[in-house]
Amino acid sequence: MNTGQYIERSSAWMPSGPESGVAISSRVRLARNMADAAFPGWAGEEDRIRVWEQLRDLLPACPSIKNYQAAGMDELSGLDKQILFERHLISRELAERSRGSGVVIRDDEVVAVMINEEDHIRLQCIRPGLDIAAAWKEADALDSEIEGSVDFSFSPQLGYLTACPSNVGTGMRASVMLHVPGLVLTKEINAVVKGMAKIGLAVRGLWGEGSEAAGNMFQVSNQMTLGESEEDIVDQLEQIVQEIIEHERNARWRVLEADEHRIHDLAGRAYGILAHAHILTSKEALDLLSDLRLGVDMGIVDLRNECVINELLILSQPGHLQKQEGRKLKATERDIRRAELIRERIKASKNDLDGKEHE
Amino acid sequence: MNTGQYIERSSAWMPSGPESGVAISSRVRLARNMADAAFPGWAGEEDRIRVWEQLRDLLPACPSIKNYQAAGMDELSGLDKQILFERHLISRELAERSRGSGVVIRDDEVVAVMINEEDHIRLQCIRPGLDIAAAWKEADALDSEIEGSVDFSFSPQLGYLTACPSNVGTGMRASVMLHVPGLVLTKEINAVVKGMAKIGLAVRGLWGEGSEAAGNMFQVSNQMTLGESEEDIVDQLEQIVQEIIEHERNARWRVLEADEHRIHDLAGRAYGILAHAHILTSKEALDLLSDLRLGVDMGIVDLRNECVINELLILSQPGHLQKQEGRKLKATERDIRRAELIRERIKASKNDLDGKEHE
Repeated sequence: MNTGQYIERSSAWMPSGPESGVAISSRVRLARNMADAAFPGWAGEEDRIRVWEQLRDLLPACPSIKNYQAAGMDELSGLDKQILFERHLISRELAERSRGSGVVIRDDEVVAVMINEEDHIRLQCIRPGLDIAAAWKEADALDSEIEGSVDFSFSPQLGYLTACPSNVGTGMRASVMLHVPGLVLTKEINAVVKGMAKIGLAVRGLWGEGSEAAGNMFQVSNQMTLGESEEDIVDQLEQIVQEIIEHERNARWRVLEADEHRIHDLAGRAYGILAHAHILTSKEALDLLSDLRLGVDMGIVDLRNECVINELLILSQPGHLQKQEGRKLKATERDIRRAELIRERIKASKNDLDGKEHE
Repeated sequence: MNTGQYIERSSAWMPSGPESGVAISSRVRLARNMADAAFPGWAGEEDRIRVWEQLRDLLPACPSIKNYQAAGMDELSGLDKQILFERHLISRELAERSRGSGVVIRDDEVVAVMINEEDHIRLQCIRPGLDIAAAWKEADALDSEIEGSVDFSFSPQLGYLTACPSNVGTGMRASVMLHVPGLVLTKEINAVVKGMAKIGLAVRGLWGEGSEAAGNMFQVSNQMTLGESEEDIVDQLEQIVQEIIEHERNARWRVLEADEHRIHDLAGRAYGILAHAHILTSKEALDLLSDLRLGVDMGIVDLRNECVINELLILSQPGHLQKQEGRKLKATERDIRRAELIRERIKASKNDLDGKEHE
């Protein structure tokens, strides 16, 4: 697998999509297991290798896959695994596995199928903006194609059976990555998070379960997989996210109205620092990219290429920086390389004359 | 007196001078008193008015003065006094006085004479960079011209007599304003300040006695006025300042060598924030202008008009901001106006295309 190919181009979710001023991306993930094999956690290595090889050979034949890369976890370096993780193509859990686990990724990165993570199959579709329905449609199509060739572990009463009971039923987790600086500035975010928990939604940080809510980004997903149809889950989540988006836009305009200069200052400083700093930690970069995104969304800062913020979110991660540099970097070296990358990209995304501005 | 005239142009000390990478300006101040009148602190109002009027009428006749503005402290608004103070043309002490005290300022602001501050006459000359000798020469010439018309209080044993014994003798205070971020970064500044105290020099902040050392700027001056000739004081101070400058340059290069990226980061962020922030406190502006000045001096940031940093040092002060705005401003309003002014000037001092960069 050539992960260098990925870092030279945008992921499918990076350009603008519906409501992308607040909703960065929508994702649907389906958990599936083969009827004739033990769950990965119970299976012996031989069984896992058999399942991995069977699916690795079967998936490319699905019309939904076509152009793809595949790799066993034992074939990937630590750095390659990190790049796939940073691009949201594999989970931390899969990255920790070795022989008998692997991933198949469609070249546009919209579709990725993890094999022998917690379940035999974890297939995901990602879409830019708020478009869970589209992600679900693609995931569903691929799911049906796979189901044409293998027997899934399925109970007429419960639905799809999974390694963890929390996924039994639809096996579906639908999620939207939201950028909500307005709710953070007005301190309404805690109430919103609590409200979502009450109606059965989970709220997580940028890199999924257990990750911090850096850069004012939160991932909202359904908790329930049992007793509801996929369409109902998608519809409900879309509706709730629409409400959060409304709430977020409202908060932004209230903040702007209450103190216009504060928002201009936030966005201006973010642009100024990102375009001119020579040392940037991962945390500071995330926070400044959030402020810049807010400024761009609100028409305060004019970026020719808005996609650059999503690109930098991923490209400025440690694995991506090291892949680009072609060697391992110490944290201080990464901070320098990160600042350099961001300076170049931010300036290039303004008008061309800007490159001459400084240094 | 039209203080609005001042804020529309640069002071005489603002352009580059000798060693101006470190030495911002040189100043000589002479304290003189009339033989036939009590010191201002002891004199009645009538006597003070007589002295003020006599000197106000006499000074313009001196060839060293010519084009000038004069004003009694009772004729000036609080804002006008603040502007003169911020431009280093009057002391805080004079600003607190009223009828019977005043100031005569040559139009280029090189020469300013305070009347009935602590002494009858406090005349000062300011020069850009390290050039105490030139400031002394001008002060000396004006002093002689005044002495041609009035009798100074003078003792053959002690020299010029002054209200405070610390000024008796030459009545001279020579000082240099230094920008020493290198010594601050290497933490050598404390040792340097102690060393200067040992050899009889005083170290103060940007706005003289009792003011804080903001923006890495320190004013170094002689303490001794007795038993030494003016030329000796000037020579000694110039020599010591030359040594400090050497020391500062050395510190800068060591810092750059030890961590090049840190200095580039400091200067880059300063430029980025100054050019893009929408709220700037006085303290933050001073600190960032210091970092920017360091970057310009070290060739890291390219400013077309280097004088702009000295201009902004003064123009961004509360009095100047309010004079430009034509009304009293709250602190929060000043922070907004300050950021606006600095943004405009910093951008204008880069190449012209830059103005289009942002917003």
